[in-house]
Amino acid sequence: MKRFIVVTLLVGLAAASVWSSSSVVPPAPNGITMPDGWRDWRVIAVSRRADKHQVRAILGNDVAIAAARAGRTNPWPDGAIMAKVAWKEKEHENFPGAFVPADFVQVEFIVKNKAKYPDTGGWGFARWVGLKLKPYGQDAHFVNECFACHTPMAANDYVFTRPARFP
Amino acid sequence: MKRFIVVTLLVGLAAASVWSSSSVVPPAPNGITMPDGWRDWRVIAVSRRADKHQVRAILGNDVAIAAARAGRTNPWPDGAIMAKVAWKEKEHENFPGAFVPADFVQVEFIVKNKAKYPDTGGWGFARWVGLKLKPYGQDAHFVNECFACHTPMAANDYVFTRPARFP
Repeated sequence: MKRFIVVTLLVGLAAASVWSSSSVVPPAPNGITMPDGWRDWRVIAVSRRADKHQVRAILGNDVAIAAARAGRTNPWPDGAIMAKVAWKEKEHENFPGAFVPADFVQVEFIVKNKAKYPDTGGWGFARWVGLKLKPYGQDAHFVNECFACHTPMAANDYVFTRPARFP
Repeated sequence: MKRFIVVTLLVGLAAASVWSSSSVVPPAPNGITMPDGWRDWRVIAVSRRADKHQVRAILGNDVAIAAARAGRTNPWPDGAIMAKVAWKEKEHENFPGAFVPADFVQVEFIVKNKAKYPDTGGWGFARWVGLKLKPYGQDAHFVNECFACHTPMAANDYVFTRPARFP
């Protein structure tokens, strides 16, 4: 009986770690691994994409949140990581005009490390797609697409997101 | 010089506590006080209101987050609190079709306590408006407006928000 309980506990822990750890998610083609605990990060902003019919949450790790609240975001400090979580949107069935999350689409990360990513504005880029979190990109060159899109934001440290103002 | 440093530190701490504590915000007309630390709560969902041109973040306290992740949200457990934070939206100046937060509009709370709020589905309602966090409502009857709006959601424990699916 004791052995059964121990085995059950171990299986339970293993199952829990599959959900909560990012270690089982394949890294992006440039070697960036999914940061642990991003689902628990705090809110930096929200947004929507009319062209893609998506709503999004932009979350930050502790370094990013501290920088956002102190207004030190141009440039963002080394160690800051932001996650942009995207869902398809759908109209609420009981509230016309309200749009809410439908299917999960992807989660994207930008990782600030000036020494490590000198060729892409000091940022490392990574994206995982769908509930299965498939790494985006055929090889490490996928970051050229990311950086090209972010280049118009050079004057804002290559970042589209500006922290939402909280009271 | 030492006295000057001490005074400066005390003034600094007082200023910091004004920002971080909700104790200086007047309570709602029904007596609900603004929960401390809601800016640090985790994400339950995001949404937008096409009619009001707003984007929103729906955050949960620890009880609400645990319930959301366990799928125990109909009914939500006692102690669950959700905050709906609303901003006016504006189109991103460098990304047509992307809409991002502009001015802060309001923050609304629903507080689950079946014993305390038996007449409004077990939920207490409160709203604070604008950066000055002015309590909404002339008197305690303002909750009639809240509950009337939420009544079509009776089959979902009177809650519009359904937790967004995370991978």
